[in-house]
Amino acid sequence: MNDVYIIGAGQIPVQKKSTESIRVLGARAVRNALADVELDSVPALYVGNMMSGILSNQQQLSAIVANEAGLKGIEALTVEAACGSGGGSAHVGCMAVASGMHDVVIAAGVERMTHADFQTTTCALATASDWETEGCNKETFVSLNARLMQEYMNRYGVDSSVFAPFAIVAHKNAWGNENALFHKEVTREVYENSKLINGPLRLYDASPICDGAAAIVLANADVARKRLAAGHPVVRIAASTVAIDAVGLDDRAELLVPQGVIDGCARAYAQASLGPEDIDIFELHDAYTIMSILSLEGAGFAAPGEGWRHGAEGRIELTGDLPIATMGGLKSRGHPVGATGIYQLAESWLQLSGRAGKNQVESARTALTQNVGGTAATVVTHILQRV
Amino acid sequence: MNDVYIIGAGQIPVQKKSTESIRVLGARAVRNALADVELDSVPALYVGNMMSGILSNQQQLSAIVANEAGLKGIEALTVEAACGSGGGSAHVGCMAVASGMHDVVIAAGVERMTHADFQTTTCALATASDWETEGCNKETFVSLNARLMQEYMNRYGVDSSVFAPFAIVAHKNAWGNENALFHKEVTREVYENSKLINGPLRLYDASPICDGAAAIVLANADVARKRLAAGHPVVRIAASTVAIDAVGLDDRAELLVPQGVIDGCARAYAQASLGPEDIDIFELHDAYTIMSILSLEGAGFAAPGEGWRHGAEGRIELTGDLPIATMGGLKSRGHPVGATGIYQLAESWLQLSGRAGKNQVESARTALTQNVGGTAATVVTHILQRV
Repeated sequence: MNDVYIIGAGQIPVQKKSTESIRVLGARAVRNALADVELDSVPALYVGNMMSGILSNQQQLSAIVANEAGLKGIEALTVEAACGSGGGSAHVGCMAVASGMHDVVIAAGVERMTHADFQTTTCALATASDWETEGCNKETFVSLNARLMQEYMNRYGVDSSVFAPFAIVAHKNAWGNENALFHKEVTREVYENSKLINGPLRLYDASPICDGAAAIVLANADVARKRLAAGHPVVRIAASTVAIDAVGLDDRAELLVPQGVIDGCARAYAQASLGPEDIDIFELHDAYTIMSILSLEGAGFAAPGEGWRHGAEGRIELTGDLPIATMGGLKSRGHPVGATGIYQLAESWLQLSGRAGKNQVESARTALTQNVGGTAATVVTHILQRV
Repeated sequence: MNDVYIIGAGQIPVQKKSTESIRVLGARAVRNALADVELDSVPALYVGNMMSGILSNQQQLSAIVANEAGLKGIEALTVEAACGSGGGSAHVGCMAVASGMHDVVIAAGVERMTHADFQTTTCALATASDWETEGCNKETFVSLNARLMQEYMNRYGVDSSVFAPFAIVAHKNAWGNENALFHKEVTREVYENSKLINGPLRLYDASPICDGAAAIVLANADVARKRLAAGHPVVRIAASTVAIDAVGLDDRAELLVPQGVIDGCARAYAQASLGPEDIDIFELHDAYTIMSILSLEGAGFAAPGEGWRHGAEGRIELTGDLPIATMGGLKSRGHPVGATGIYQLAESWLQLSGRAGKNQVESARTALTQNVGGTAATVVTHILQRV
């Protein structure tokens, strides 16, 4: 497969109660990305989005966003994989460039969720579950993740305090990210006093409902070489994979084995000829603290039942041996669903090109990003390398 | 770009009031396609769908359908471009194969629309319009297409009888297609006595609301060569393009100039090194009879204002010089929105491999298929060639 590179990115601040429509949010991120690479247009735009049809009455969003961004007559398609939609859009962008269909494309993600009332948004999010067995039985992502937490605690004999570091570190890292939703300190005390929402799951175990948009510019080797020669940063996409698991939790053989994460990482490591030992940063899908732990285990960084130790031992901090959520993660940068996968890639792009400011992970050369639809039902994995 | 081939296809009959859920409809088409090529699985499935989130509370449909079809752990993503979603899924499938990401993939499309009440479905369909300027002002695709019809009649001085042949021929062709929704004769008299729905637009100018699913198997040259050597049919995809226009009609410079059709065809002809004169079959997007006429004009088969003559002069019939809707088209095979683009490709695959039965277009070597989101806002174009 031909090489694909990230040559630029654009973000808008993650927010609540945006007064702008979804098309404007998306177009702002796209224009920011275009400005980053000093281009007026690109021949193709892929937009990751999950809920625009349900919450904004707007399908065909890719064409809507493209037109709003001034990109007339281009190729545009929307890619959906629930909360993994952004990653899916990047994957399609990679295939568009690698196939030779286009030399430069933009993969974007956008979601607007906070203009609807809480109940409507919660129901819309539940369409990412297996509706026939979960959503229609009033399961939500809070209840599904609470179940995973409880099962993890029972199986491995740990208490709920093991989840705290994943929330604390994410909030700590968001301070250095101007695009993050939250800039607030969360201590262990704050975490432990936060509201119990469902079983062992506390408010601070969950990522927030919010609005946001991000975009990355993908290019082929020729374009990347020219950018590099002109003194601009370039990051190589060493792997791009998608792997599904059963969507409903009850359809899985082992509740605590995230098979999609395992399969997606195995394929990504094979594509990149790398292993977990080569990864400097892991932008994992910390929609819930339990997902951080299961992701560390599934990606090969910890044995089953041991992932929580990365938190307890400080290994996930910016100065640790495997930083996660380096710009705040889903927990604190925020999780505007369809945009999240692109935020992860844009942030990793900043890290690997040495422009992550206060949050710079020193000597970071290789980043693993993982964006997940449902409870790890569609897992989109990328490996990025500094050039 | 590496060559991509269609090596198999699967359809289910288009129907109303399906008692099966959307996942079952989709999985049946996928399994039919797998059976057609005698495979148990493929490494990737792309599903075109527009309204599953709104009408069936199910997003992440690609993973849901893949699991239902027994395709565990594969890559799966949903592609959305309103009524052009099926074509979009085929386009992504082409890029997946052409990039070398996968050697064989399935591009499918599925829609279930008739279980909801008429008003709900009409509103869901209106999310394919520009919601802020059209849908929220109670515009529907019926009203938008009625406006185009009236404008066409005014501008070119024709009366509404010019639209009749496009409905009549589609219904005539559906008789030979067991997967078509309608098997009923529509004479000029029936057409002219049919209900006026909106302005000049009659019931028989519009395609029906229905349920359906279809799938095609795409493969690289190596796989296609082996299939061919073993005596199986193979069709080459000579072009695959997507082109957008402004989504809202009022944002277009010329209401009757389908710029997306023009751009999409221009790029497809360039990719295939072919022109309109090389096309034997045109599976156009006859969601409304006016769209057939504008498509013929935009694709270069007729000058502006002259497309209706293809109907009047019998050129669009199976025995004409440019057959359209050869298996009934959107009008009579049916228009299960997200599946339509794949039905078109599956039907063209049958035509070019000489297996279209009673509807076989003699000596057909090259087919143009065009699947459209909105009122030609996202236009997905493919050119297929007999090998």
